[in-house]
Amino acid sequence: MSATMDVKIEDGKLALTEHEGVDGWDASTPMTAVGQPATRLEGIEKVTGSARYSYDVRLPGQLYAAVLRSPHPHARITRIDTSRAEALPGVHAVISSANTPQIPWFEDSFVFDTTVRYVGDEVAAVAAVSDDVAADALGLIEVEYERLPHVTELEAAIRPDAPKLRDSGNIAGEPTVYDRGDAVAAMAGADVVIDAVFTTQAAIHNSLEPHGCTVAWEGDELTVWASTQSVFTIREDVASGLGIPEHKVRVIKHHMGGGFGAKQVAWKNDIIAPLLAKRAGRPVQLMLDRHAENLASGNRPPTRQHVRFGARSDGTLVAIWADIHIGNGAYQVGGEASNVSGMYQSLYRCDDVHTESRTVLMNTGPAVAFRAPGHVESAWVIEQVMDELARRLDLDPVEIRRRNYSPIDQVEDKPYSLPDGLAYCYDRVTADFGWANPAPPAVAGSKRRGRGFAAHDWAAGSGHPPAYAFAKLNPDGGIDLVTGTQDIGTGTRTGLAQLAAEELGIGVDQVRVQLGDTASGPYSPVSSGSSTMASIGPAVRGAVADVRQQLLRLAAVKMEVAAERLTIVDGRISVIGTTDQSMTIAEVMEDVAPANLLGRGARGPNPSDVSIRTFGAQCVEVEVDTETGEVTVLRVSTAHDIGRIINPALVDSQIHGGITQGIGFALTEERVVDHRLGMVMNANLEEYKIPTMLDVPPISHAHVDVPDSVANITGAKGVGEPPLIPTAPAIANAIFDAVGIRVHDAPISRQRMLTLLAEHGQSAAPEVAR
Amino acid sequence: MSATMDVKIEDGKLALTEHEGVDGWDASTPMTAVGQPATRLEGIEKVTGSARYSYDVRLPGQLYAAVLRSPHPHARITRIDTSRAEALPGVHAVISSANTPQIPWFEDSFVFDTTVRYVGDEVAAVAAVSDDVAADALGLIEVEYERLPHVTELEAAIRPDAPKLRDSGNIAGEPTVYDRGDAVAAMAGADVVIDAVFTTQAAIHNSLEPHGCTVAWEGDELTVWASTQSVFTIREDVASGLGIPEHKVRVIKHHMGGGFGAKQVAWKNDIIAPLLAKRAGRPVQLMLDRHAENLASGNRPPTRQHVRFGARSDGTLVAIWADIHIGNGAYQVGGEASNVSGMYQSLYRCDDVHTESRTVLMNTGPAVAFRAPGHVESAWVIEQVMDELARRLDLDPVEIRRRNYSPIDQVEDKPYSLPDGLAYCYDRVTADFGWANPAPPAVAGSKRRGRGFAAHDWAAGSGHPPAYAFAKLNPDGGIDLVTGTQDIGTGTRTGLAQLAAEELGIGVDQVRVQLGDTASGPYSPVSSGSSTMASIGPAVRGAVADVRQQLLRLAAVKMEVAAERLTIVDGRISVIGTTDQSMTIAEVMEDVAPANLLGRGARGPNPSDVSIRTFGAQCVEVEVDTETGEVTVLRVSTAHDIGRIINPALVDSQIHGGITQGIGFALTEERVVDHRLGMVMNANLEEYKIPTMLDVPPISHAHVDVPDSVANITGAKGVGEPPLIPTAPAIANAIFDAVGIRVHDAPISRQRMLTLLAEHGQSAAPEVAR
Repeated sequence: MSATMDVKIEDGKLALTEHEGVDGWDASTPMTAVGQPATRLEGIEKVTGSARYSYDVRLPGQLYAAVLRSPHPHARITRIDTSRAEALPGVHAVISSANTPQIPWFEDSFVFDTTVRYVGDEVAAVAAVSDDVAADALGLIEVEYERLPHVTELEAAIRPDAPKLRDSGNIAGEPTVYDRGDAVAAMAGADVVIDAVFTTQAAIHNSLEPHGCTVAWEGDELTVWASTQSVFTIREDVASGLGIPEHKVRVIKHHMGGGFGAKQVAWKNDIIAPLLAKRAGRPVQLMLDRHAENLASGNRPPTRQHVRFGARSDGTLVAIWADIHIGNGAYQVGGEASNVSGMYQSLYRCDDVHTESRTVLMNTGPAVAFRAPGHVESAWVIEQVMDELARRLDLDPVEIRRRNYSPIDQVEDKPYSLPDGLAYCYDRVTADFGWANPAPPAVAGSKRRGRGFAAHDWAAGSGHPPAYAFAKLNPDGGIDLVTGTQDIGTGTRTGLAQLAAEELGIGVDQVRVQLGDTASGPYSPVSSGSSTMASIGPAVRGAVADVRQQLLRLAAVKMEVAAERLTIVDGRISVIGTTDQSMTIAEVMEDVAPANLLGRGARGPNPSDVSIRTFGAQCVEVEVDTETGEVTVLRVSTAHDIGRIINPALVDSQIHGGITQGIGFALTEERVVDHRLGMVMNANLEEYKIPTMLDVPPISHAHVDVPDSVANITGAKGVGEPPLIPTAPAIANAIFDAVGIRVHDAPISRQRMLTLLAEHGQSAAPEVAR
Repeated sequence: MSATMDVKIEDGKLALTEHEGVDGWDASTPMTAVGQPATRLEGIEKVTGSARYSYDVRLPGQLYAAVLRSPHPHARITRIDTSRAEALPGVHAVISSANTPQIPWFEDSFVFDTTVRYVGDEVAAVAAVSDDVAADALGLIEVEYERLPHVTELEAAIRPDAPKLRDSGNIAGEPTVYDRGDAVAAMAGADVVIDAVFTTQAAIHNSLEPHGCTVAWEGDELTVWASTQSVFTIREDVASGLGIPEHKVRVIKHHMGGGFGAKQVAWKNDIIAPLLAKRAGRPVQLMLDRHAENLASGNRPPTRQHVRFGARSDGTLVAIWADIHIGNGAYQVGGEASNVSGMYQSLYRCDDVHTESRTVLMNTGPAVAFRAPGHVESAWVIEQVMDELARRLDLDPVEIRRRNYSPIDQVEDKPYSLPDGLAYCYDRVTADFGWANPAPPAVAGSKRRGRGFAAHDWAAGSGHPPAYAFAKLNPDGGIDLVTGTQDIGTGTRTGLAQLAAEELGIGVDQVRVQLGDTASGPYSPVSSGSSTMASIGPAVRGAVADVRQQLLRLAAVKMEVAAERLTIVDGRISVIGTTDQSMTIAEVMEDVAPANLLGRGARGPNPSDVSIRTFGAQCVEVEVDTETGEVTVLRVSTAHDIGRIINPALVDSQIHGGITQGIGFALTEERVVDHRLGMVMNANLEEYKIPTMLDVPPISHAHVDVPDSVANITGAKGVGEPPLIPTAPAIANAIFDAVGIRVHDAPISRQRMLTLLAEHGQSAAPEVAR
């Protein structure tokens, strides 16, 4: 059996194939469940408040933890006395560097280190009967610090005389250098060269649900209810941190209020909570409040990108050169790197490319992947430079991109699985937006209107194999899926249910999806890189196909017809092309009740001869108020080659969320640091401005929906990150279209816009210090 | 792959085989993990109080439920007004027959019926913010009853003029009649006939943890944390009761404080709690207190057994005849029937057997399977009659049994899988006890000593196939087992870990066992009939064997040697017979990390040509105080053919528990009903006397430990029920040996003993009314 998952040894490695006996769905396959805008399975639970999050775990004797954080950006702890805190009634455990083993964390530092390197760094932790008692106890911990010089600004941190975070200096590791051809030599042959410096700001994820976990020891087994994008990563990191085997740690994630990349790794709280629980002999909950969340659980790193793009007069690129600095904060967290260089190398056809990238340490909270890490930062630059080149050469911004089209992955020297993917996006988005139509009047009073265009690529769709799934068909014809993946708020449960329903020929409501539990779920990778569906989707389809094959073999005997002649529609098994004979799944199952039919599926490795990527392009129209500096996004059209659209409602939800986050990145979101004090001034949701409903314009999603049958047997790639990538540069390009000002530094705050308008003599407003 | 589980269609049915590629372990297989007295995996959690039971579930907004129960043994509800209860602050839901649909339960009745049939029958239920408020609310519910005539005594219930519980009378259904040969005719040829009436009492399970559950709806999905012996049965029954598909119900059982048969079915509380939670829009916990537990969640039914045994003068049986009445209480619960007739038909060789059995309805709490249901009741009779025959014929009690030995299952006309199983028990237990040694002095003052013997059979070992298991090998060499079985307190987790450790060649501590969850666990049957290990054990072994095969194939490539030449010892893979080349599992796994190797196993159907049974024999020595009527059990030896002993410590734990419960059944345990009022007088742990530590004598377990390789690939059968079965008749036989009094009615309370002693002129004590 198990034609859908075979374990082979190839080149000495375990090779899984999910394809055998399962034909890939292509564009011509008729679909009933897949492609429908099915309502989220957990929708009712979420809107009625009955959905349970890690925070909702309550266990007998449960304690509540609070963490003492460094008030200094850089200091050595010379004395720490927790005795008064320990004596406070209701306090069950206090831990710090004074009484815990040195557990390595973030390269050369420890969970509780004696050097603190940013305001918010963990110093001590308390578990008490309530949040209030825990907070009181923190105030009783006496810490003496020896302050050290600090640096919290990217440009300052790379100066030779900057205060050092490490003996080796503030550049972490070696520069990442990439060369294809000879960019410097080729640049000399360019008709036009753009040479410019751009910067992007530190942005904060601000998931609705903060980081945190509830933990409980039972004997030597630990259960961690974590808000995480990767239950298996947390299991590995917690086991490793605590020095226990992985099977002694069970990580559960039921529902989750977003991660955006910041929850793909274990953080110190995932270790601190079990340490407190062990010491207290009680379960412990450690959830970060918004202030701690925004200081100490990741941010998009600020960047400085010095670039040179050379082109011929026909617009074709002859050389790309980029020198990149990434302000990584005090520690390197791990997880997905901020690959700022990548899109310089891949988005446009160019034989001569040089990128070099440096990771810079500074006394701020550690950076971590943030939705489309690196790509949002580089798109800001690349797509403005392409726009600038088009302006200089009097080309249409879309036309210049078409002239630099690459149907192959130039870095890996392989064709794309869907070579026309980006071209589809150009076609669909320009048609949807009406890019060819005459622009509406650009000026009205103090308001100026403009239109901008930007494109992107992204590595989603390749997934992170392997991934596995089990399917259990119940006697009544319903199905339970068991996976080790997680739904991080994107609708994975529903999408998987649709895949299962499609494969078996039943309704979406006939499927239950179990996920987010390392104890029972077979391995599934991190939900990052928009890869969840491409990773686990094929495994789920394979597991259900396995069940389907068993079911049809049973039905064939009962119906006295060859299994190959049978089909399942709406839970009823019948002979293809006839109507005279049929049975429900439950009727076929009667002989095997009360048992399950069990299926097993695997997501095997990617095909080695193609590169699997997603693409997208976006058009925006903006209005700039030259009096107030306010930029209003009037409308957005977007198109993305994300492979098959499993659920258009869920995809549109990602599109809307991504573009909204892109608008925030473009216009308002910025972590503000007082560099003298080294303190974040807006680690909250009042002064850190994320877009609200009123800031979101009409968004039109021009579906591409071309199944990428080469990528995997579902044809779906991934959509989580793509929509965000081109939004900010598209807005910047539209601003240029409106007022002729190229904004190099993100975000385009009113203050910055006003300053630039004044510099360009376009603003009547009083000059404002930048 | 998956040589360990193959799905075939045979005779139109799904056939699973777990054997392919896996040789059965036999007595000559060297064992390292299996057979060791491994400490319970959850031992520390249980003794430190950190083990979480259904009662320990706490959810945000959780409510606490209480149930209003009938104060009358038989009545019609004419009015019910819950408005005052509903108005009480803190009350969130009140349900009764007045506001809930009629959900069928227990044949012809409903969850909330308008006729109540015993004191304790469910009338209404409340969910409130605390137990106290819920209890107060119960007091505010106004119910008017029209009382009906009642009967609570077995003998009274079968009289023609007895008050009727059903229109059809108090005999439920048709009598169960079994005939082999012609017992009546054969009886005429007997040299000696014993004709007697025996009775057994109603006994109450008294698991340490009462029945109950915590339930929560999330949208249309229900989670039930239930104290149950069968998560899949609860799922099926709750889904059916609520009219929703099975995949919408998730049943979880983590730890459990015993069931003893009473938790193998869903009870009304499993439906009442979800109804309350739905109405309240909040999670609800409904745990029974001891009083409700002992009234309304099952009991061992009282029996009346009129028997005739005929034997030749050499002791060989010529005829067995039994007329059995079983006092089933007000409802037939379902689940395992009380098969009182069975052992009459099977334990001894006899060609002419007649049994007839009637289930009697009466106005008491419903009976349900109680550890070795039927067998405890029939052993009380059969084994006393065999003893009596031996006395009459001047034969040794063991010798008369040997003369009636049957190596075949006479009912199914098949050989036993281990035909000498019972003979091994006779040999081992008599040697261990010193049965052949001269008895010590039988008289000392008012004390009389005696020795008794009894034997039994039981259907354990055949299991309840199918059952399935998954195994996940982690990158660090540890393994996670995923099953849908449950550990009802017997140590299943540990036994399964030992099987997995043995199969893979790792330590028991390297295994984590996930069970008790219908959402993630593949189907496993009810844990009843001592069948858990025989059901799930082979599936677990098969799943791990599947993983082992994959691992060795990987290792073979790395080590450049054929997989067949490799072995795994203590987590290290090496070439059989050499020491020069080896790798740890983690080293082999490096290439596939961070993924699992996944195995799948199944417990297929039993071989059709044999009968799989367990057997046992017990010797006891007692002391009867003729002044006080006190019977003291001085020592017990016991031997059981339970197949391979996977863990002698866990087996001994079952042996000790079973014999302790047998002593309780023999001497002290009895549900006392005031038949006039129809009320149970001792529904508590003060007046219902279960044995304490001080009542338990030295118990010697003479291990048989012969693997039953025919039964399944582990060689293990089951031990949960067997030890209890012969204890009470062995004690009764020892009492006869001591004082020459045959006690027909269980339990042998001091009062009963004193009365009998007085009747036989042996007691100096004042006469006591019986």
